[in-house]
Amino acid sequence: MSKLRVAVIGATGRIGSEAARSVEAADDLDLVASLGRHDSLDTLTEAGAQVAVELTHPDAVMGNVEFCVRHGIHTVIGTTGWTPERLSTLRGWLDAAPGTGALIAPNFSIGAVLTMRFAQQAARWFESVEVIELHHDTKADAPSGTATRTAQLVAAARSEAGLAAQKDPTTHGLDGARGADVDGVPVHSVRLRGLLAHQEVLFGGTGETLTIRHDSLHHSSFMPGVLLAVRTVPGVPGLTFGLEHFLTEPQGAGPQQGA
Amino acid sequence: MSKLRVAVIGATGRIGSEAARSVEAADDLDLVASLGRHDSLDTLTEAGAQVAVELTHPDAVMGNVEFCVRHGIHTVIGTTGWTPERLSTLRGWLDAAPGTGALIAPNFSIGAVLTMRFAQQAARWFESVEVIELHHDTKADAPSGTATRTAQLVAAARSEAGLAAQKDPTTHGLDGARGADVDGVPVHSVRLRGLLAHQEVLFGGTGETLTIRHDSLHHSSFMPGVLLAVRTVPGVPGLTFGLEHFLTEPQGAGPQQGA
Amino acid sequence: MSKLRVAVIGATGRIGSEAARSVEAADDLDLVASLGRHDSLDTLTEAGAQVAVELTHPDAVMGNVEFCVRHGIHTVIGTTGWTPERLSTLRGWLDAAPGTGALIAPNFSIGAVLTMRFAQQAARWFESVEVIELHHDTKADAPSGTATRTAQLVAAARSEAGLAAQKDPTTHGLDGARGADVDGVPVHSVRLRGLLAHQEVLFGGTGETLTIRHDSLHHSSFMPGVLLAVRTVPGVPGLTFGLEHFLTEPQGAGPQQGA
Amino acid sequence: MSKLRVAVIGATGRIGSEAARSVEAADDLDLVASLGRHDSLDTLTEAGAQVAVELTHPDAVMGNVEFCVRHGIHTVIGTTGWTPERLSTLRGWLDAAPGTGALIAPNFSIGAVLTMRFAQQAARWFESVEVIELHHDTKADAPSGTATRTAQLVAAARSEAGLAAQKDPTTHGLDGARGADVDGVPVHSVRLRGLLAHQEVLFGGTGETLTIRHDSLHHSSFMPGVLLAVRTVPGVPGLTFGLEHFLTEPQGAGPQQGA
Repeated sequence: MSKLRVAVIGATGRIGSEAARSVEAADDLDLVASLGRHDSLDTLTEAGAQVAVELTHPDAVMGNVEFCVRHGIHTVIGTTGWTPERLSTLRGWLDAAPGTGALIAPNFSIGAVLTMRFAQQAARWFESVEVIELHHDTKADAPSGTATRTAQLVAAARSEAGLAAQKDPTTHGLDGARGADVDGVPVHSVRLRGLLAHQEVLFGGTGETLTIRHDSLHHSSFMPGVLLAVRTVPGVPGLTFGLEHFLTEPQGAGPQQGA
Repeated sequence: MSKLRVAVIGATGRIGSEAARSVEAADDLDLVASLGRHDSLDTLTEAGAQVAVELTHPDAVMGNVEFCVRHGIHTVIGTTGWTPERLSTLRGWLDAAPGTGALIAPNFSIGAVLTMRFAQQAARWFESVEVIELHHDTKADAPSGTATRTAQLVAAARSEAGLAAQKDPTTHGLDGARGADVDGVPVHSVRLRGLLAHQEVLFGGTGETLTIRHDSLHHSSFMPGVLLAVRTVPGVPGLTFGLEHFLTEPQGAGPQQGA
Repeated sequence: MSKLRVAVIGATGRIGSEAARSVEAADDLDLVASLGRHDSLDTLTEAGAQVAVELTHPDAVMGNVEFCVRHGIHTVIGTTGWTPERLSTLRGWLDAAPGTGALIAPNFSIGAVLTMRFAQQAARWFESVEVIELHHDTKADAPSGTATRTAQLVAAARSEAGLAAQKDPTTHGLDGARGADVDGVPVHSVRLRGLLAHQEVLFGGTGETLTIRHDSLHHSSFMPGVLLAVRTVPGVPGLTFGLEHFLTEPQGAGPQQGA
Repeated sequence: MSKLRVAVIGATGRIGSEAARSVEAADDLDLVASLGRHDSLDTLTEAGAQVAVELTHPDAVMGNVEFCVRHGIHTVIGTTGWTPERLSTLRGWLDAAPGTGALIAPNFSIGAVLTMRFAQQAARWFESVEVIELHHDTKADAPSGTATRTAQLVAAARSEAGLAAQKDPTTHGLDGARGADVDGVPVHSVRLRGLLAHQEVLFGGTGETLTIRHDSLHHSSFMPGVLLAVRTVPGVPGLTFGLEHFLTEPQGAGPQQGA
């Protein structure tokens, strides 16, 4: 089988260079181009890239993706800054290039994506839910984007299932003890020297709790997700938002009746 | 809306009496009969029971269930001892009573069932997986039945997804340190005064881990599952084995593309 | 060896009755009196009680303890409401009864007491520390008294060791995300159906974290502490505040040099 | 205040080079020499080193340490391979150099050392105890040396306190499920891609558990311990085995009576 021809745009950054190394190390992928800030996009077509991994900056991403889509190169995009207007523009480009796929992934960590999925699935079955996220002691935002997103997804799943809002039993206490309120789900942010990025979703029901915990212990944790995206995007034309849509169940895995 | 008319068979046992109380406390259920060892099954029909919860003993369960199915009473069965022969007999009764449902549940804890489901779903995405179960210090079997079942499901999911077998890196060590081998998944059993029933499934990939943990802190933890089963079984004719088939996703919850 | 003669005052309450049962079950203790609200304190002397466990109410405790101290009965006191004035009064009684001991214990759980002790010992060695306490979903105060006390002890230990105050890196976020501030230590309170009483103290330093976690899974968890206090108090004349002073290291366990 | 003059022997190795960087970065320390394999030990005296950090190899350590002790240079030794004979030889050198100190540290992680200390202190108060250690999936030995040592210390503390041996309740099960037996303490070894080095000591008593967990998330975790040793060893003449002896409590921190 011939190898998939992959380029990395933004290959001189910390994450981009690690992505380039991971592509290079994969048996089924061929790293055909590594573009830094001053390299011409023509390198992509000259090298015959089939998939481009875009890891640059919101100022540069639109031009890079437009070039790729126009030339039928599938894109895996980690760069942020996607406003509704930008998404709409990208959809227009993809409509004009049938068969070409683009994935935008706010989070490439498979563990983080599964945590959000399982939290959504569990939400309807438990009266109580709270989120604890724990990060290194230089993180500027609290809660983390992932924790906020997780809480929103859980809140939406509860609402869809018709669950009553959680009642806070606290009648006296200190400000902040009960965390931040994200759509009715308390979110607690711990900042600790020595940590990297960690998240727990805690569900509680009669006599039992269910905890889903994701630990990102090294910044390489997003690499398997990048490789998965590179391998999958050629088969999914149009725009996909979120790596979770590439983490599909095997067919025939639905509920079965009978013993 | 009229309430569902529910009977409990085995209502004098510890679990049965708790089930009766839970049914009684539910707004949408009406406890119409509580049968002890010496009560006649005719009580069920005289009371107009629509669903019977069967929590007795392998010696008594077949007669009880046969009576229910013949009279069109749906059954929720917690009693164990279901051999292939018994299952086949039960299926025969249900075939002769179209519209009547029966659920056999080895585990009524929703948290335990979701843990197994999520473990199955996560299995294909991680190179490594191990199971730790922790129970009170009088438990006679190790590993627990739930941990063994979880490891088997995880092993099957890995195999289906074409993952390579896990390699144990241990070249020298003490016997037992690396746990029991269940279909290639190491399972560790902790026994500790003060605990009840707890289980962790640990997945590891490049730079990250995902942990799914279930804590059963009180024996009431199976009650929500019993009530869920009672409410669901009238709508599911025939035999269902495993509460997981009643923990369905809301319709239209499949993966969606586009932002 | 003759058994220690023990009485329980407040033996009809939930905790008092459990204390009475625990004393009765102990091989080395003899339950000689169980006093309810209307029983005369003279029962204590008639029964020859050597130690009394006081588990009543702030309105009743002073009279009960005064009677005990005057009659040379050692007391183990779980009742709260000890103002500086009350403590001073109690000390006066004890001064007049040399050889008689009294222990006031805000928390009888050995695990909780050790958690506080270890947290104090660890505090000086880590740049970062935060506390997470998790309780059932009907707890009215947040943070818990134990978590507040733990954070205060940790803060004091940091201060004694000359550690700089922790800096919160958060520059933008949601109110409450970073917990309550107790003497500079963030404390987070989780409330979840299914939980009882749990606490984690998380320490972080360069490349590592240390976590001390206490789980109280059943209300019987304070019984070993009550029994320990009953056995110890006869040998410790005067007033002791806090069970931690009875959790002593074996002699000669200090640091040793040489291999 | 003048800075302490520090040398690193074995400064070209991965750990040695990190130690050199850490010394250099410390405000109160002056890195005066970094010796690789081919550098002369005379560099130490020429540079006026007061403390040497020895991070080489069992084949080289004796010669290096002898040189240091003879020249009154205090040593902090991470190199392993200390047989009773070697220790005896080292003690002889130190006897001949009064005022000179040497610390041998099998583990420089402060978190690991405190975990062992707290486990020892807690051991006497709980009926049950087990150890779980979790490491990356290339570790060759199971259990880890730290886990084995922890279990031995816990077992000794139980024995000293007169606790009965733990009884394993298992009557039927799979081989290995209940872990390795280290002096009567079950030890479980988990190997998982994505992990580095982690250990939990779980204690269980009536209705409660106490867990002490150490997570080493980055190999820099031993650096604070090296710096602590460098600063402390000049004040502790003779041989000290184990960093725990340098983790001393502040004076006057003993138990206090009275409120």
